[in-house]
Amino acid sequence: MPSFDIAILTTAEDLLSGDSTDSISAVVVDMLTRHGYRPRCSLAVSDNEKEIFAALNYLSRQARFVIVSGGLGPGSNAFTARAAARALELPLVIHEEALEMVRAWCHTRHQAPDPANERLALLPQTAQLLANPQGMTPGFTLSHHQCRMFFLPAAPAELRAMLKQSVLPQLQQDYPEEQRLHRRTLKLFGLTEVRIRTMIPAGRLPEGVRVNYSHDFPLVLVNLKAYGEGAEERLDQAEALILQLLGDHLMARDGQSAEGNVAQLLTRAGLTLSLAESCTGGLLSSMLTRNPGASAFLDRAGVTYANAAKQHWLKVPQAILLQHGAVSEPCARAMATGLRHESGTDLALAITGIAGPDGGTADKPVGTVYLALASAAGVDVQRYLFSGDRARVQKLSAFMALEWLRRFALQRLAD
Amino acid sequence: MPSFDIAILTTAEDLLSGDSTDSISAVVVDMLTRHGYRPRCSLAVSDNEKEIFAALNYLSRQARFVIVSGGLGPGSNAFTARAAARALELPLVIHEEALEMVRAWCHTRHQAPDPANERLALLPQTAQLLANPQGMTPGFTLSHHQCRMFFLPAAPAELRAMLKQSVLPQLQQDYPEEQRLHRRTLKLFGLTEVRIRTMIPAGRLPEGVRVNYSHDFPLVLVNLKAYGEGAEERLDQAEALILQLLGDHLMARDGQSAEGNVAQLLTRAGLTLSLAESCTGGLLSSMLTRNPGASAFLDRAGVTYANAAKQHWLKVPQAILLQHGAVSEPCARAMATGLRHESGTDLALAITGIAGPDGGTADKPVGTVYLALASAAGVDVQRYLFSGDRARVQKLSAFMALEWLRRFALQRLAD
Repeated sequence: MPSFDIAILTTAEDLLSGDSTDSISAVVVDMLTRHGYRPRCSLAVSDNEKEIFAALNYLSRQARFVIVSGGLGPGSNAFTARAAARALELPLVIHEEALEMVRAWCHTRHQAPDPANERLALLPQTAQLLANPQGMTPGFTLSHHQCRMFFLPAAPAELRAMLKQSVLPQLQQDYPEEQRLHRRTLKLFGLTEVRIRTMIPAGRLPEGVRVNYSHDFPLVLVNLKAYGEGAEERLDQAEALILQLLGDHLMARDGQSAEGNVAQLLTRAGLTLSLAESCTGGLLSSMLTRNPGASAFLDRAGVTYANAAKQHWLKVPQAILLQHGAVSEPCARAMATGLRHESGTDLALAITGIAGPDGGTADKPVGTVYLALASAAGVDVQRYLFSGDRARVQKLSAFMALEWLRRFALQRLAD
Repeated sequence: MPSFDIAILTTAEDLLSGDSTDSISAVVVDMLTRHGYRPRCSLAVSDNEKEIFAALNYLSRQARFVIVSGGLGPGSNAFTARAAARALELPLVIHEEALEMVRAWCHTRHQAPDPANERLALLPQTAQLLANPQGMTPGFTLSHHQCRMFFLPAAPAELRAMLKQSVLPQLQQDYPEEQRLHRRTLKLFGLTEVRIRTMIPAGRLPEGVRVNYSHDFPLVLVNLKAYGEGAEERLDQAEALILQLLGDHLMARDGQSAEGNVAQLLTRAGLTLSLAESCTGGLLSSMLTRNPGASAFLDRAGVTYANAAKQHWLKVPQAILLQHGAVSEPCARAMATGLRHESGTDLALAITGIAGPDGGTADKPVGTVYLALASAAGVDVQRYLFSGDRARVQKLSAFMALEWLRRFALQRLAD
């Protein structure tokens, strides 16, 4: 297939000084890939003319499209415009239309004209202007040999708006459909990548559908990709095959979160919930309330660190705490039962365990976690032994609890 | 000063497909900058020989040190070794020492010898081996004209270990001290970047100390940098000046988190705490229990979404809920007072508000949040109006609560 490569160049004063990760190129990669355009390479350089000049020369030989962000704004000495002019051997001139844009932006914001701002209109001679709906700094585009270059500011809101308004439509027109990437992501819980690989035999996927795996701990993401005509149909087939094999482990799809999905399922099933968290310290409650609408199902959550709190709020009998300890099957059972009685919710879920790094014993090592779910049908309790550091044990505990809730809500909806 | 530039090249099958952000180059940038080495540019390319070949040719002309990660492991067809051999016009040969390493790794793990693994020992002829303490794939280093290249695997644990063991010592030896970056970061809360800029007059900082700003919402990070001899002393002076002006807003330093810092202060001050969260849904509790040792100060946290929960657990009188509503000054006061009485802790902090996007009224728009802190001295209540989406309102509320706790603990320690 004919090659139509896209390269990304990002430049900023402190991009590589460790102050912040390179979120600018991530904005561009994300926007492009979501529309099926896969960049071939991404280069980040410091904000100076020599560096940008070398990068433009290199990338314009590598790709048909170069998307440059940064080095345009009032603070940057217009390094990018200078480097572009030098790379294309064009003079820098005041671009009248750009000057109008800058003045109009200042005018609507009642700012006095400032020569520093007007330098933003100093662009390579043949540059075509790109309007900036979110800011003062105009963008521009230039062609060099076989290569089309887009120059955009680095502020994420401006960058996103201009990619959408000026770059994506051009790609839509020029980018060959057969190179366009179509994709699906399935987020699975409870199976390792190795196990999933053995369960998805590559030979059984429709021709031209590639599968690869990535991680959003503790979820394993199954990424399905296909190019060109009929790609969506082939992805439908691949997805149906995988769901037939592994659908039981599907926690969310593209653009969904596990907790958002579980919140929706609980709401649809009309189930109310209360939580008692000990070793997770409020993580599960915090996840379930990230999205609006949590008050439709969540009544309360108690982070009961102290034994007294378990007695007051969850009515755990002192005898259980004395005889079995707070991390025990009887305590988890009593927490869920007492909480459900107190709150009157359909479901009461309790988590108690040892997240570490301290507090483990030979009998109950770090990573020991009990989950209990009380409903009208009674109480289920299960002991787990999770591995990893404190953050991993907390996260695995919260996700395992989400998994219990997901299965309960699905069962209720199926009944 | 003589230029000693470092370039980073990362390569992976799906680096630019949007499956994951480029965390590999972030590992390298972070490790280098923490030791004072600032990379000049960072290039990410797809995992194929032609692409890596072009990138090596470009970067070896740009920099004295090139750190390459990826394209070495069993899954990658040894693209990087092939591209390096081609760029340096060297034959690929089986490197006996590398073969020994691969076999030894398999042997200690009781894996049968596999020809696929032994291909990992196929390296450019003059390559010097770099041991991999964390994995099977050996790294190597080569010199080309003025440039020294390091080839490392991309798995983060292996990459970190090999940077530490093989790359940093070489940089320590070769990198000119006058180019070495020394830095400090001060994390401030409660002031905007614009306000901080006006309060730190650039002219008053010691010569050669640069300041720039970055964001870790809602904290503003003041980054101080200096090069070469006497840099640490100049940074000490700069830091003292800034703390004199803005120290009251210092929430954490480099490598500290706001919540970790507050947890330490509470523990040092011997204060016990209980929390009542409504609109933050457990976020504050979850932050404070991320670090081990939270049981030293945290007794309990109640996420009291439902009014019934506020009545049961916090003893908020029904009359207050009926007359003023759950988001009100009297309710916040009653939550903190009731909670402190129930838990018997030194401090009881309550948060109630409207995180949005729904639930706002003309009187109490989205973003309205009440904080209340009960102590032996009585109850303080304050109303805030935070702007932004749900996540921002929740985060600002939690940080404002941390700020109250920080100030209370500091006051107690000063008494």
